[in-house]
Amino acid sequence: MLQLVDVGRQSLDAYKPIVGTEIIEELRDLAKPLKGLKVAHINATPYGGGVSELLRSLVPLEKNLGLDAEWRIIFGQEPFFKVTKTFHDALQGAQHRLSSEEKDTYVTYNYANSRELKAADYDVVIIHDPQPAAMIETMEASHKTKWVWRCHIDTSQPNPEVWAYLRNYIVHYHRVVFTMQEFVPPGFSRAEVEIIPPAIDPLSPKNMELEPGMAERILSWLGMFPKEPFVTQISRFDTWKDPFGVVKAYQMAREEIPELHLALVGSMALDDPTGWDVYKELTELDRADNNLQIFTNLTGVSNIEVNAFQRLAKAVIQKSVREGFGLVVSEALWKATPVIAGRAGGIPMQVQGGGGILVDSTEDCAAAIVEVFKDRALAQELGAVGRANVAENYLITRLLRDELMMLRSVLGYSSDRKAA
Amino acid sequence: MLQLVDVGRQSLDAYKPIVGTEIIEELRDLAKPLKGLKVAHINATPYGGGVSELLRSLVPLEKNLGLDAEWRIIFGQEPFFKVTKTFHDALQGAQHRLSSEEKDTYVTYNYANSRELKAADYDVVIIHDPQPAAMIETMEASHKTKWVWRCHIDTSQPNPEVWAYLRNYIVHYHRVVFTMQEFVPPGFSRAEVEIIPPAIDPLSPKNMELEPGMAERILSWLGMFPKEPFVTQISRFDTWKDPFGVVKAYQMAREEIPELHLALVGSMALDDPTGWDVYKELTELDRADNNLQIFTNLTGVSNIEVNAFQRLAKAVIQKSVREGFGLVVSEALWKATPVIAGRAGGIPMQVQGGGGILVDSTEDCAAAIVEVFKDRALAQELGAVGRANVAENYLITRLLRDELMMLRSVLGYSSDRKAA
Repeated sequence: MLQLVDVGRQSLDAYKPIVGTEIIEELRDLAKPLKGLKVAHINATPYGGGVSELLRSLVPLEKNLGLDAEWRIIFGQEPFFKVTKTFHDALQGAQHRLSSEEKDTYVTYNYANSRELKAADYDVVIIHDPQPAAMIETMEASHKTKWVWRCHIDTSQPNPEVWAYLRNYIVHYHRVVFTMQEFVPPGFSRAEVEIIPPAIDPLSPKNMELEPGMAERILSWLGMFPKEPFVTQISRFDTWKDPFGVVKAYQMAREEIPELHLALVGSMALDDPTGWDVYKELTELDRADNNLQIFTNLTGVSNIEVNAFQRLAKAVIQKSVREGFGLVVSEALWKATPVIAGRAGGIPMQVQGGGGILVDSTEDCAAAIVEVFKDRALAQELGAVGRANVAENYLITRLLRDELMMLRSVLGYSSDRKAA
Repeated sequence: MLQLVDVGRQSLDAYKPIVGTEIIEELRDLAKPLKGLKVAHINATPYGGGVSELLRSLVPLEKNLGLDAEWRIIFGQEPFFKVTKTFHDALQGAQHRLSSEEKDTYVTYNYANSRELKAADYDVVIIHDPQPAAMIETMEASHKTKWVWRCHIDTSQPNPEVWAYLRNYIVHYHRVVFTMQEFVPPGFSRAEVEIIPPAIDPLSPKNMELEPGMAERILSWLGMFPKEPFVTQISRFDTWKDPFGVVKAYQMAREEIPELHLALVGSMALDDPTGWDVYKELTELDRADNNLQIFTNLTGVSNIEVNAFQRLAKAVIQKSVREGFGLVVSEALWKATPVIAGRAGGIPMQVQGGGGILVDSTEDCAAAIVEVFKDRALAQELGAVGRANVAENYLITRLLRDELMMLRSVLGYSSDRKAA
């Protein structure tokens, strides 16, 4: 059984005060030929992570535009998810020797799931990420159904063996969507490739307006002193996000700003032992430094708390060494908070034209913190420019527009993809 | 090093709109002779669980009243916390044979911590729960310092061996505080015993006012349909809380109310393998039933989400077979939500005079759900009576009053403990 995720209802009109009437009307126009279109989004998990956040926002809006859109979750058990986690890491470049057992497990579960999907009932099936990618194998040539593979991960330097294996399935898709041009695997230059960057939902609990008083109360309750100046990094505890570099940069900056605090906010996952090791090391540092605090979902941090951190911080740091898209940058900028971030993945795109300061070293990062603190006019300008850039490029309405264009194109409703 | 928890500032005046001027003034009067009193609260953890929630609310208010109050965390490592978890379970009645290694570990860490406490610097040391209870051993008779042991757990039927061991330390305290008369261990009838029930903080993120629109948005984002009628149980996934009985009761009730939903909301702890087993079993049920949903801290539930669940539910269920105090009942009643609960621990106290329906079986529970649904006048009355009862008896201001009285008494400032 492909579990249906009940996404509830959301009206596109709710976004009017944020993006303006014109954009909403353009979206309604674009969707007109897609009325009643049966679309299935299929992925591996209803909770946790960027893909499920995205679908939770996107699917109700597609429905509101008249599409008959659904979101379904594949069935899987531990052996399957172990294999797909390996695939995921390998597609991001990890070393791996593919075994025939792994292929068997992957295909068996994909086959079992595809038996549950009446593909012929849909006009378009959108498969998210590698876990369900082999479901296309059951596609019959006679069906009119179009298949789209939506890859959300950084496959710019995939493990060749795993990519070659998956590629055998991917080539059958009518359209393949990546997040950034840079993420397209080497040699995979096909006409059917499309680029759609991700986006944030300004009405979600993570991004919605919060009164400053409420944001302060929320952080106080966690043990922060929101009235004292702080910077924060919100990311998994993962060496690619360089949390220890962040601590060092904060310590350097503190020599000039003694009252500075640092809040490291991370989400802990059960299948991430490395994250736990990093977390333990960080808590040791935390114990030795009263101005450094570590927070996780286990100590009461969820979406609204993240919202409060991003909103009240003097600057949000995202000192990534390697990054996927790094949507957390847009989340912070949307709250008009300046961002200090590593030059990795999708970060430069998001801070282009101002809004953030790109840094290449711990020293740079420390200097940027001091700069943002001491130069209030600069901080305000960064925030304002950043928010305007997100408003134009990284809100869910822009993503929805891209998706509608892609659907029109894959169905042949419009040869001129730029036309509304 | 006994880590200081920085609790920030809170003014008692913020509670005036909730409890009225008279109570605030009584508290200020009671605190007058305690101005400058040096009080140390000592416990094992700054986050997670009822004790740290309580101290997070209480200590800033004591400071606001002029007491020189601190909250400090003992140092411990895995072997120590393993022993204290065993003690905790044994004090709640679990079978256990106490080993000399366990005693050694317990005493060693307690001794190390007590070396860090300059007890003579304090007028009163309040030790919370068993973990730091042996720190009193270093107390010197010459010191004027008063020691209070504040036991938050249900020690009504303790494992005799573990209790006999701990009792050797407890008897040296000047005052011993339990949550309910029923929790006092058998045979421990000393003049120094005092009863102080716990309380909720109406200004904490879990209990603060939330606009209905915001509460709905928060639940929608988790995947709920807040406009559809639901009941909820918010508790650890633990057989003492009978989650499977709750599912059965909901299923029975659904025969009469087909649109009924159930949200089971639990906090997962890493050191609780049983909780994970129960969680897995529940998610199986969840998959088979579209109106049943399971939520945890790992899927985005934290304090504000719990607040929204309690606020929008048609009824909050707490079908405990065994319960400590069950403060979650007061949390729900404070939001004027009717409670349907098992006759266990502190639950009957909290629903006395109406506000909740006590149930002794799954059938009772199902019938009560149907009753609350069908009889709107009853539901409203339960909510109103429940909120009034919490306002009088289970808010943090009442707890603060009791604590001030206890401090006055233990210091001999007032022989008549009933006098303000």
